[in-house]
Parts: sequence; structure tokens; C-alpha cells
Amino acid sequence: MVHTTQCCILMGCLCLFYPWSQVCEWREPEELAALLDLELRENGEPQHQLLQRIRDVAKYSVKTNHPRFFNQLFAGVDYHALTGRFLTEALNTSQYTYEVAPVFVLMEDEVLSKLRSLVGWAEGDGIFCPGGTMSNMYAMNVARYRAFPEVKLKGMWSLPRLAVFTSQQSHYSVMKAAAFQGIGTENVFKVKVDDRGCMIPEDLGETIELAKSQGAVPFFVHATSGTTVQGAFDPLEPIADICDRQGLWMHVDAAWGGSVLFSKEHKHLMRGVERADSVTWNPHKMMLTGLQCSAILLKDTTHLLKHCHSADAKYLFQQDKFYDTSLDTGDKSIQCGRKVDCLKLWLMWKAVGSKGLEERVDRAFTHTRYLVEEMQRREGFELIGKVAPVIKERMMKQGTMMLGYQPQGGRVNFFRMIVISPQLSHQDMTFCLNEIERLGNDL
Amino acid sequence: MVHTTQCCILMGCLCLFYPWSQVCEWREPEELAALLDLELRENGEPQHQLLQRIRDVAKYSVKTNHPRFFNQLFAGVDYHALTGRFLTEALNTSQYTYEVAPVFVLMEDEVLSKLRSLVGWAEGDGIFCPGGTMSNMYAMNVARYRAFPEVKLKGMWSLPRLAVFTSQQSHYSVMKAAAFQGIGTENVFKVKVDDRGCMIPEDLGETIELAKSQGAVPFFVHATSGTTVQGAFDPLEPIADICDRQGLWMHVDAAWGGSVLFSKEHKHLMRGVERADSVTWNPHKMMLTGLQCSAILLKDTTHLLKHCHSADAKYLFQQDKFYDTSLDTGDKSIQCGRKVDCLKLWLMWKAVGSKGLEERVDRAFTHTRYLVEEMQRREGFELIGKVAPVIKERMMKQGTMMLGYQPQGGRVNFFRMIVISPQLSHQDMTFCLNEIERLGNDL
Repeated sequence: MVHTTQCCILMGCLCLFYPWSQVCEWREPEELAALLDLELRENGEPQHQLLQRIRDVAKYSVKTNHPRFFNQLFAGVDYHALTGRFLTEALNTSQYTYEVAPVFVLMEDEVLSKLRSLVGWAEGDGIFCPGGTMSNMYAMNVARYRAFPEVKLKGMWSLPRLAVFTSQQSHYSVMKAAAFQGIGTENVFKVKVDDRGCMIPEDLGETIELAKSQGAVPFFVHATSGTTVQGAFDPLEPIADICDRQGLWMHVDAAWGGSVLFSKEHKHLMRGVERADSVTWNPHKMMLTGLQCSAILLKDTTHLLKHCHSADAKYLFQQDKFYDTSLDTGDKSIQCGRKVDCLKLWLMWKAVGSKGLEERVDRAFTHTRYLVEEMQRREGFELIGKVAPVIKERMMKQGTMMLGYQPQGGRVNFFRMIVISPQLSHQDMTFCLNEIERLGNDL
Repeated sequence: MVHTTQCCILMGCLCLFYPWSQVCEWREPEELAALLDLELRENGEPQHQLLQRIRDVAKYSVKTNHPRFFNQLFAGVDYHALTGRFLTEALNTSQYTYEVAPVFVLMEDEVLSKLRSLVGWAEGDGIFCPGGTMSNMYAMNVARYRAFPEVKLKGMWSLPRLAVFTSQQSHYSVMKAAAFQGIGTENVFKVKVDDRGCMIPEDLGETIELAKSQGAVPFFVHATSGTTVQGAFDPLEPIADICDRQGLWMHVDAAWGGSVLFSKEHKHLMRGVERADSVTWNPHKMMLTGLQCSAILLKDTTHLLKHCHSADAKYLFQQDKFYDTSLDTGDKSIQCGRKVDCLKLWLMWKAVGSKGLEERVDRAFTHTRYLVEEMQRREGFELIGKVAPVIKERMMKQGTMMLGYQPQGGRVNFFRMIVISPQLSHQDMTFCLNEIERLGNDL
């Protein structure tokens, strides 16, 4: 049978991942397009050709599972999570009603509840979203709805000009959300950060007053636990004090940093998170579940999420069903069909336990600390500047590793090293530094 | 190795799907929760227990791949697409830059271009989104941006009250989009439909005038090709005439119906679609790619999508890269991380060709026609009314098949039969009618 053969090949590709020495096999776009023969035609192709296609797709794709892929906030592979992802694909369902997704409705509930308990909430609400940006958008939308429920019916014309607050180094999804939701990027006020990239609470207070003096109505503070570039954790306690005093919705974007809550040693970085109204947390980042796995968690127990997003479609959410229709959780979502994102996390969690996930987080911090110490011992790692793009080009073309660079604020280009994969060792950290030196040796 | 064993079990589960006689193995929520032992604990579980968990998840999940799953607008399985989904999971990447997803950036471009050519556009733009609702939201947002580009910076306060138009039977995502984007559901004007559920163009014209007389500014007409309940196709030519005359953005939500464009026999249902500004098309529905696979296609060649959604994040979209950065397509998206949704469709298309996909569409229509004729031959299939929920309950608890019911407009409950799977035969159609008779025999 077709699928058996192909799946075997696939497994073959999988097993090849790790021993492959290269993280990527760089090809110029034109050359790659020709190699892949992407064109879709009138007639189908024979079996052997399809198998070759599958091999080519794997060969020329970046091996994000490779231990030396440090390029994004996701990396590595957990085989339990991968099994959960395969099973999700095989079962192919949509997470909207108990009748269609009985197992996953209950499972999502359990996983969300467990994530909430790590935040420090005994109850609350939440949903899995297609990525952290969507989760952040949910937070902004629900916050707006709590402050001005008439917005759902009447739109923004019934509301005063609103103001959103976030740090200068928060993720760009805040801007995307403000634009998409009709708030406008000009109404996102940027709060100053300190040297480490953490929001300065005093400046938050002042910025709120500034917005008010301009006639805008503050409603939403978007703090960050684990910024995208520096990995900074905003000080949540003083931010919560300000939100309390001003009656603002406090959102914590912990897409990247949330996983520290598993660690007794590092969870202090998010001290005060239980005072937030909502938290974004992407297990597909530090937890290695694989894309996509992002949760928006809410402290709310008044069904705000459902009231804000529901459209009561009769073909899906019939009220004369023979079971408890509160299990039909799909109307909390802004989506209709929604992919099952909980199984991969649940299965991995079952397999290694909270303890195993804690160890994973601790190990990533240990590697990072080692890397920083090693870097301080070496010369020439302070400023990379104009040589970074050249080192990056050589790195990609030789395929030895992958990490990203960018400028920030007044600083010139620097490399951003993301350390996640449990397959990593101190040797990999040393390799990485040696490799940057080697690639930039003549510059 | 862990993954090898588990994957073998998984394949075992897969092979079990088809011969399983039941579409679902119904359990009450409390019972199911206990059976699955969902709780996540401090310690991990041994291998044999994990394997049992995987078996249980498969056993109690609805077999949406079963030929007699007629419950949603997705069903059935295509093994090529499934292989593409497994490979997507194994490669685990995010579709934002050429550097991270070289194969998939080029592949998405090819697939979108091919879908556009079926719409009738030689050029244009587009992107894959997490589901049809998101695709519809993109359309509304880009339309708003084209009409009032200042909205991105200044928000809705700089705009007049807007008006959206759609039929009474369009999908509820229009309402969700209007609420989410700050337009408000009251500003969605519902246009009357005829008996078949198709938008009445004359009423569209009148409703536009009505909105204007109330001081609202029309900007967006949301037509439907394949409504969710009746499968109706709005008449696109006269709708396009009105949009042309009034200078409105014409969107066609062909999430369900789009696949008729593969069929020489049935594509007339979407005559005039090439005059639209944007089209939503979900290959995860009639094409069986598996969730999620939804494209938003645009006729636009001025990079509206990018201008509307870009946030120019420096850590991701560096402009001093060593390759053509126009290949970094991620900033067209409102997401940051974005799952690869093109591979499953591409691989299936390569395998069976456009011709194979055409046959699939034609076969679904043949089955439907047969079903209608059979139904007309039998008595008692006119009105189901209050007995539908009871028949549905019995159907679920016996697990013999799954189809949905709902009321609509003035009509009482009726069953909505979705015919997609290529594994279906006329026998299944007959079975379905017999089974409804059997289940409702004593009512």
C-alpha cells in the first residue's frame, strides 16, 4: 500500500536527521526551485518519483532538529511530542465540539488547567491558538471587550481612543494586534527598558499619564517574560501594582519565557505572574513540542473568552444535544476549524513528567551560563557589527550551524544564540564559539 | 529507540482505522476522562503505559477517516497528503524566512500560484492561514487597509463607520471577523437569499443603499461559494457588477466550494470568481489534505498583503542578508511563527495530478446526486424536526455513522450530509438512508 511504503521512507529520513553533519544544505533559490521541480501538473507521478520528492524535501530543508540549530526560539526534537504530532495528523480532527473531538476536548482542558496551576491560578480559562501572536491578539481583544463590551456589536466608533502599553523590546505581535484589531499602531505606547532589556516600571507609570494627557484611554499593559532578542523578563510585581491601581488588564507574553515556571530554580524570573489577567505561553518553544503549540491562559472565571468571541453557529453548536454542551468549547475561539495542539504536549508531559520538563529548563540555563562564561574568556566577541552578515553567509553555505543576528537599539549587529535542545552539550557551546571565530577569522 | 517503537504502534493504529466498524466509540465525558487518566504528574510513565495511552487516544477519538463520517466539511484520508503531514511534523519548521524554510517558501509560492491560476489570475498574492476564518479575516483586513490605509497607524477612530455585506447564510466567521477587527457585528449587513440559499443580488444593491442612508461607508462584500449548511453558490457575476459599480472589495469565501474549480463539469458554479479581489479556499475540506490547509488568494499585485500586515521585525527580517529578502514572506502574515501547510497539498497534487483532483470532485457530486435521487424515492425524509436530536444520539452511541443536524431559517431540524471521501460508494449512500430510517423507526 502506498502509505506503508512512503511512511517507511519517511521514517528513514527521520533516522537520517541526527547523523547528518550539516544543519542545512544551502542552495540559491533558483537552483533549489529547479532541483525540487515544484510545478504541479495535469497528471500524477509514479511512486518512485514521489519517494524521490520526499527525500529531496527532507534533504534541502533546514534540520531544525539538529543540535546546532540555534536560529529561532524553537529547536530540537522530543520523540514523544513527535509521536503525539503524528497521531494528531492521523486522527485529523478539529477541536470544536465534544462530539467530534471527545478525547481532545477533555485533554485540552487538563493541559490548560495544569499550565494555569503553574502560573498560580486554581481556576480560570484558556485555549490553544495557532501561535503566540494569535494568543497575544486574544489577550488584547478580551481585554478590550472587558473594558467596553459594546465593541463587539458596535465597533470602535462607540469607544474612546484606546491606549496599549508595552516595552520597547516586546515582540512585534503587539503592533500586529493593534493594527489588526483597529486600535492602530500609534496607540501602542512604548515603555523604556533598562540595560538588560527589562521594562522600567516608573516609565510605565509616566507613559500611562502621557497617554491620558493626550486624551487616550489606557486599557491594556503587555508585559514580557523572555523578550525575543535579549531574553529579558519584565518585573511583573511593580507592573501589577500599576495595573491594579489604574484598573488595567495585565497581559504577560511568556511565549518564550513561560517554561521557567517548571523550574524551582528559575521561576522567580516570573514572580508576580499570578497577578496578571492573561498569559501567553508557547510550549513549542522551550518545551520542544513542535509547532504549533501556544496557549492563551486567563484568570477570568466569568466566560469572558466565550462572550467575547462566540457567534453561536447553529450548525455546530446546537443546544438540543444529548450531552453537556459546555464541552463544545469551539466558540471560545476566533477560528472555526481548529487544529488539535494539546496532544503532543500531553503525551510528552506524561512521558517525562513535570520533573523531566523542569530538568530540561534547568539544563538550558546551565548551557547558557557556560556559553556566557566561555565568551567572556575569549576576545573579539564584544561587537560583531558589519562582519555578522558575512559570518552568517559563510555559516549557511557551509551548513555547520545556524544562529541569527540583528542590531538593536544603539547596538550594531550581534548574534542571538538560542539554547534549547536537550541533545546539546557543553561541547556544542564550545563548537559554536570556535566556529564563529573560524568563520570570521580573516575579517 | 523510543520513537521507533512508538511510531510502529502508531502505524498499527493507522492500519486499524479502516477495518474498524464504528465511526466513534461513544463514552460519557466523566467516563472517558477516567478511562484516559488525563492527569499530568510529577513523574513520567513507563513505556508500556505510554503505548497504552496512544492506543486509548486512537480508540476513543472519532474516526474522521472512516467513510461514514459525514459530520463536518472535512472527512476521509488521502495517504499522500498524510505523508506530507508526517513529513511536515518531522521537519518542524516555521514558514517565515527563506533561510529557515527554503523548500517551503518556494513550494508555498508554487501552490498558491497554481490555485490562483484556477481562479483565473495570471498573477497575484496570497498566503496559507490557520483555517478559513483566518483567511476571511485577512480579506476583510486587507480590504479595509486598501480603502483606508491610515487605519494601520491611527486605528478606527480616523475612519467613518464602515459597512460589510454578506448573505444571511454565509459562514459565522464574517461576524467573528467584524467583532475582532473592531468593525462590530452590527455593521455587518445581511443580504437576503433565495430558496437555494444563494445571495439575491438585487437585495445586495438595496442593502448597500440602506447602509449608506444610515451614514455607513460600504467597503467589503463577502460572497460565498458553497455555504456551510446548504452548499449554495452565490451568483458571482451580478455581485461583481455591483462591487465594480460601487468600488467595493469583493471577497469570495470558497472555503468549501473552491475545489469545484478543478472540475470542468462543475466550475461554472463559480463563474465570475476571477472578478473578485480575494478568495478563501480550504483544501483541507473537499480536497482531503487534512487540517489545517486554508489559502487566502488575492488578485492584488501591489504588495497590499505585506504593507497591511508588516511590522519589519529586525531579528527576523534583516535587510542586509546575503539573499533576495523578498523571499522572506513571513511579514505578509499576521502571525509570527507559522506552520507549514503547503507540503501536504503539494505532495498529493504531485501524486494524483490536477486530473486526479478533478475526478475526486466529480465523484463527490455524483454521490450527492445519487443520494438526492434515493431520498426523493423514499418517504419520511422531508422533515426531521424534533426527532433529529434523538436519531443523532442513537447514531453516536451506536457509532455506525456521523452526520450533523440543525434548523435553519424557518425550517426545523434537518440532517446535513457531507459527501467527500474518495473511499465512498453508492452503497454508503444507501446505508446512510437506511440507517436514518432504522434509528428513527419508532419515533
